[in-house]
Amino acid sequence: MFKTHIITLFPDLFPGPLGASVLGRGLDEKRWSLETVPLRSFGAGRHASVDDTPAGGGPGMVLRADILARAIDSISPPADPRPRLLMSPRGTPLDQEMAQKLAREPGLVIACGRFEGVDQRVIEARNLREISIGDYVMTGGEVAAMALLESVVRLLPGILGESSSTVEESHAGGLLEYPHYTRPREFEGRNIPDILLSGDHGKIANWRQEQSRQLTRTRRPDLWSRFKREKG
Amino acid sequence: MFKTHIITLFPDLFPGPLGASVLGRGLDEKRWSLETVPLRSFGAGRHASVDDTPAGGGPGMVLRADILARAIDSISPPADPRPRLLMSPRGTPLDQEMAQKLAREPGLVIACGRFEGVDQRVIEARNLREISIGDYVMTGGEVAAMALLESVVRLLPGILGESSSTVEESHAGGLLEYPHYTRPREFEGRNIPDILLSGDHGKIANWRQEQSRQLTRTRRPDLWSRFKREKG
Repeated sequence: MFKTHIITLFPDLFPGPLGASVLGRGLDEKRWSLETVPLRSFGAGRHASVDDTPAGGGPGMVLRADILARAIDSISPPADPRPRLLMSPRGTPLDQEMAQKLAREPGLVIACGRFEGVDQRVIEARNLREISIGDYVMTGGEVAAMALLESVVRLLPGILGESSSTVEESHAGGLLEYPHYTRPREFEGRNIPDILLSGDHGKIANWRQEQSRQLTRTRRPDLWSRFKREKG
Repeated sequence: MFKTHIITLFPDLFPGPLGASVLGRGLDEKRWSLETVPLRSFGAGRHASVDDTPAGGGPGMVLRADILARAIDSISPPADPRPRLLMSPRGTPLDQEMAQKLAREPGLVIACGRFEGVDQRVIEARNLREISIGDYVMTGGEVAAMALLESVVRLLPGILGESSSTVEESHAGGLLEYPHYTRPREFEGRNIPDILLSGDHGKIANWRQEQSRQLTRTRRPDLWSRFKREKG
């Protein structure tokens, strides 16, 4: 079983969306587990405070190294083989390849940042890998942790019904996915492209490949350059 | 007030994390609103089905154009000035600049995909802007919609306490954020860098800028190239 621990100030938000649909079924079937570690219960003093003002001045508050270290140590001893992640806009960007690698781990420990940031010393002392879900800023790491877990857990064995649907999707082959159509055949005067109704599987596959290439080239020149470099 | 509608098969997941912390307070204070549109109630036939098999074959199911169009039309007439977004791995990547632009709109209509994809014709007929939160695949658009909304709503007037904290953060200036430190002064033999305790604000600002540059250069050469091109 893929064991996950989420260190957060908002344990009530979990499982939240991770308890719905196929991921929720996977939880019920014990294909993966999710436990929250309430950061507040490791807080200091009468107010169980977890943050303090930044050394050197500046806006916002910084999550204390000692508090986060205690929370981590409560569920992840030094020999824990699971990667320890910190959701952070400074992190390495999550992509499909990283999701696939993380899905082969025995599980994950994920710390959710809040406030202005996290004391750098706990990042180093506990070997936290900073991961970003994209180049935008959130109010905390909770939704980012959900996005990361959703992308990873759906790749675990037995989670998705049809295994082929993780192979043909966007990003799996380095290209964006081709356009989809379904019934009704006509919608507001717009028809399903004839080729998709032709029954000629070779032609359909070629058309889809060409659509994927065109879309990637126009919408994501960055992915297109990488695709050309790696796959010719 | 910034008015948002979320079209989803899982209305119970909202507000979820968007109801916590500063975003939740913003909801209470009516600085923004969130209404869900349950896609299932626009479904067809006895089973209120919303999807069908892909034209041309292939794995998974495709969300029907007519069903999603009806759901959109129920809350967003043609003259609605709000952008209509579709969360999709094929979309334009969300970044901080896009979040800032979206925060200046009167609100957002967000459709959450599920299944293999969404019929291309409703994307065109209802002028849906496909947005991706990153180069990884989710099981549906709900968590992606949460991530997008969190990044946008926190930028609305009155949501964050200290206005300066949206200026100094990662990505706002094209660089990753410098490392943070707070009390205690010593943690497991690691000290706060002397310069941050010096009280010399000019030197501290220079040190932070240099740290931001170094981190961006080593961790995100893509951002670093863009920064050098745009800001010299």
